[in-house]
Amino acid sequence: MFESFFRNQTVPSQTKIAMLILDGLGGLPQEPGGKTELETAFTPNLDALAARSTLGLTQPAGPGITVGSGPGHLALFGYDPIQNEIGRGVLEALGVDFEVGPDDVAARGNFCTIDHDGLLTDRRAGRLPTEVSKKMVELLRTIKVEGVELFIEPVKEHRFAFILRGSGYEADLTDSDPLITGTAPLTIKANTPGSEKTAAAVNEFLSRARDLLSDQSPANMILLRGFARFPTLPTFQEIYKLNPAAIAVNGMYRGVARLAGMQVLPVKGTTLADEFTALEKYWQTFDFFYLHYKKTDTCGESGDFFGKVKAIEEFDALLPRLLALQPDVVIIGGDHSSPALLRSHSWHPVPLLLNAACCRPEGIAEFGERACARGGLGVIPATYVMPLALAHAGRISKYGA
Amino acid sequence: MFESFFRNQTVPSQTKIAMLILDGLGGLPQEPGGKTELETAFTPNLDALAARSTLGLTQPAGPGITVGSGPGHLALFGYDPIQNEIGRGVLEALGVDFEVGPDDVAARGNFCTIDHDGLLTDRRAGRLPTEVSKKMVELLRTIKVEGVELFIEPVKEHRFAFILRGSGYEADLTDSDPLITGTAPLTIKANTPGSEKTAAAVNEFLSRARDLLSDQSPANMILLRGFARFPTLPTFQEIYKLNPAAIAVNGMYRGVARLAGMQVLPVKGTTLADEFTALEKYWQTFDFFYLHYKKTDTCGESGDFFGKVKAIEEFDALLPRLLALQPDVVIIGGDHSSPALLRSHSWHPVPLLLNAACCRPEGIAEFGERACARGGLGVIPATYVMPLALAHAGRISKYGA
Repeated sequence: MFESFFRNQTVPSQTKIAMLILDGLGGLPQEPGGKTELETAFTPNLDALAARSTLGLTQPAGPGITVGSGPGHLALFGYDPIQNEIGRGVLEALGVDFEVGPDDVAARGNFCTIDHDGLLTDRRAGRLPTEVSKKMVELLRTIKVEGVELFIEPVKEHRFAFILRGSGYEADLTDSDPLITGTAPLTIKANTPGSEKTAAAVNEFLSRARDLLSDQSPANMILLRGFARFPTLPTFQEIYKLNPAAIAVNGMYRGVARLAGMQVLPVKGTTLADEFTALEKYWQTFDFFYLHYKKTDTCGESGDFFGKVKAIEEFDALLPRLLALQPDVVIIGGDHSSPALLRSHSWHPVPLLLNAACCRPEGIAEFGERACARGGLGVIPATYVMPLALAHAGRISKYGA
Repeated sequence: MFESFFRNQTVPSQTKIAMLILDGLGGLPQEPGGKTELETAFTPNLDALAARSTLGLTQPAGPGITVGSGPGHLALFGYDPIQNEIGRGVLEALGVDFEVGPDDVAARGNFCTIDHDGLLTDRRAGRLPTEVSKKMVELLRTIKVEGVELFIEPVKEHRFAFILRGSGYEADLTDSDPLITGTAPLTIKANTPGSEKTAAAVNEFLSRARDLLSDQSPANMILLRGFARFPTLPTFQEIYKLNPAAIAVNGMYRGVARLAGMQVLPVKGTTLADEFTALEKYWQTFDFFYLHYKKTDTCGESGDFFGKVKAIEEFDALLPRLLALQPDVVIIGGDHSSPALLRSHSWHPVPLLLNAACCRPEGIAEFGERACARGGLGVIPATYVMPLALAHAGRISKYGA
């Protein structure tokens, strides 16, 4: 909604913005009347920073909407997450660091098991071990379909990413996965004329895969779903006049950051401390840093309340290393809530902290859901975060006279 | 804005949602520094519920916009009240439980008095008693106009509902009511070509009504205004996958609920306790209940501050009967504010309480305007209420991965 406006209003500057995203940050009390994960955590550094910051809560895509990390990040980066839908196929490919091109059609793949009549008996082939899956992928890679280039990338267990590269192949296709057992995999159908040659190519691939895998066990067939093409996003350079970098360990986040035009920095190791080391190393080279921390979400999704508390405390302990770099603007927030209570992503608004020399602090010396509910930023769409960061970085010119 | 999104994202569930609407709930302090009606009321049950709920304030149609109950309710039901305008004529017909059809053109009618020169001397014919009005309606019902079917329904005092049923009759017409006395009733004009045959039919009806009533007294003519057709709303079943019911004593609310696809339940009696009895009786049959309480608005509009306080206390006393049903989600709010101080509807945001096992309570043990201003939901458009209710009821699927 703001893209075209900010494209005209942003101005270059020497200021630096650091956006630190704790995945699934928002939580819920584990017991009635209790505290959330963030409220429970001992966070002296965050609390001290909150006291001189302005606080609020972000809504990723709208009221009551639970988002995946893809749309959650798009919103934080300033893109309308509903208008810019990232299809599941593209997310799967991005997740394994496959460089999805503008003409690529991507889908999620599953190895599955069918019986002698061709009916599905297990949609995941007993959650095929990743190592077995990788060998099966090698088999699939031998399949050739005329007119297109095919890429098969192992993901995890029974899952793989399927990418069809050609020219003028649209991606509005039905799934082959019927989502239930006892029925045969479905023939892919085109929903638009422009997708018909895509459907034909994919069906040919599926037919050859069936022949090729027929004597394998337990996985003897594949399912494809979530066909999608890459959304075209204006980059951070174009809209914000920023030179942005991303620090993330997991492929999906690296992929979404790349969509936004960020340079994905190498991280030696996989810990949050390793990510902070990368931040320090490249601090002089870029003026916008997105740093992603996964553990808060992993604990939330597995229902590990105190694991999430501890993950937040680990983040807090490393925060001084960021502050020592003296960023002009610090954003600390999340892409969505992942309350341990619900063991899943949720729609609850997400705590947000914005610090800058020119921010208007409320003087609330606590970073937590209820503290943020009292903050001066209010409950805002997550798409407001980038405009607010840019403004506090002196990067938006006055509108009108 | 969210209708098409939620149509795709909502999922069926066994959960139950209860939405209790206190008409005109929001108020103002009667004296500077004082408390509002809701803050004054002794509401131990609401306060205890608030402590374990999340609070906020709703804005029915936008900042500074005072709404009638029609748009106020549309917003609470999730429909944009500005895009989905319900014409006054349709509201009048719905208000007397007339089943407005998709091709019907409805208008508000007034019996009035004209002098020998045809000039209006009283736009309401001395607020004609309802009983007299009903007999006059019988006279009007004898009028036939070729090509259309006409329905005249008495409302109250000088008012009646006029409905023209035909095929392809548009409703973009001017009023015959000049809104001032000393001038003649106006000829109806069509604002669009498609409304021209409607204008002709209505003018013929008005001409015959004038002849027919000329020897009557004090009402010897009629005025028509607010021509409108039924807006087409997607139903709760379609967008939300709910099986909804409405409990309301007054016709207007029953009508708006019917627009949204709700089954309007019979209520034995007219008290709030009678409405709760209906709620209990049908609790197993539906999964969404809208219950409307009129008295708060009636007192607000008549400037009866303590009457409104008492009405709120009556509601509070009955609240345990709702909670005993163990709804998964409880929404308590209002369609607009009606401060006794102003003796009218007002634009002030309206207190909102949302309770569910998975809500994020602020721990504010009070339900009042200022307490809600500190709530974690923030000041939100009333159209957010349904998405929030559905999310807390586990009825919205995750968006993206």
